[in-house]
Amino acid sequence: MQWFQNTIRLPAFRRGFHLVTDKIEEAVPEIGKIQIGLTHVFINHTSASLTINENADPTVRADFETHFTKTVPENAPYYEHSYEGSDDMPAHLKASILGSSVTIPIANGKLNLGTWQGIYLCEHRNHASGRKVTITVFGE
Amino acid sequence: MQWFQNTIRLPAFRRGFHLVTDKIEEAVPEIGKIQIGLTHVFINHTSASLTINENADPTVRADFETHFTKTVPENAPYYEHSYEGSDDMPAHLKASILGSSVTIPIANGKLNLGTWQGIYLCEHRNHASGRKVTITVFGE
Amino acid sequence: MQWFQNTIRLPAFRRGFHLVTDKIEEAVPEIGKIQIGLTHVFINHTSASLTINENADPTVRADFETHFTKTVPENAPYYEHSYEGSDDMPAHLKASILGSSVTIPIANGKLNLGTWQGIYLCEHRNHASGRKVTITVFGE
Repeated sequence: MQWFQNTIRLPAFRRGFHLVTDKIEEAVPEIGKIQIGLTHVFINHTSASLTINENADPTVRADFETHFTKTVPENAPYYEHSYEGSDDMPAHLKASILGSSVTIPIANGKLNLGTWQGIYLCEHRNHASGRKVTITVFGE
Repeated sequence: MQWFQNTIRLPAFRRGFHLVTDKIEEAVPEIGKIQIGLTHVFINHTSASLTINENADPTVRADFETHFTKTVPENAPYYEHSYEGSDDMPAHLKASILGSSVTIPIANGKLNLGTWQGIYLCEHRNHASGRKVTITVFGE
Repeated sequence: MQWFQNTIRLPAFRRGFHLVTDKIEEAVPEIGKIQIGLTHVFINHTSASLTINENADPTVRADFETHFTKTVPENAPYYEHSYEGSDDMPAHLKASILGSSVTIPIANGKLNLGTWQGIYLCEHRNHASGRKVTITVFGE
């Protein structure tokens, strides 16, 4: 049984959905030592999130941004929490709809993602610094 | 490698979003024995859910309730499953949108949550008893 | 500490929400050897997803399909990614809203699901082949 944990800061991204699979893999090369296991990626913030989706066509990621902005609106008349900016409350809601972590199987020293799967950093604020993520790798 | 599991019943909460980080931590003091690991919190119900979000301003949690009630309506004309009350089918939908579990890294004997992160029990029914959650702590 | 991993292909399902708890359990009989642990079920695709919800009345699953089709529309005028069919972009969005994996506690050799909980395979495409899922079982 082996355990590794690394907390990194991803670079600042503009609002939207961004592929970060490579950056996650580079941060935990110990995945290569594990035959069967899991990788857990956790974002230590409440206005950005993580999800797994299509890793090829950038229009998919653009449509994610458009769709979530339509369905989780800014300046909704029913928001009470508005003093941190019009993008703040929708950011919290999107973060919980999408989730704060992803867990991915490891098989034979590699992330066992499907052909079209990649990890997205979902940045929901208009102006954010780099986001801290904690990656935990474990298995045998 | 250490494993601990505890099933607890949270107190009954009114419909809405409620911070339960303290109650979870109190149920598994064994987190303190683990240097690297994970805590998995699972709700054993289908009309309440768990998520991680902002732990400070109560208006955030009030806005969660308002937003999800707007976007997952009661008495939608397209619901077939209506005999358990107008809050039942929306409760099931919200439970799957938000999720039935959260997984949080452990570092140096503590939950490695961000400064503003807390665990929410999301109660989607108008009248519910306390909810059963199963907490699994593992690591080394 | 024990680890088991099995990748299976579920049968092709029509678009909608389908109970697959039995098929998952059959694929990993090693759950029976574990007193405390977790089962992680991961779908290796980006247009289908996994969730946990009510395992009894089929109208709940029908309402899931209706609700998600209403709220994540086909042919939204704002989609740029449309060349793979009108059901493709909504399928990606639904997959991230619902999630690509579920993690369930194991207690005394069994999945520790609540009385009314089952695992759903959520098929978001109109015509799909069987879906690959990777099941990882670990514990002691």
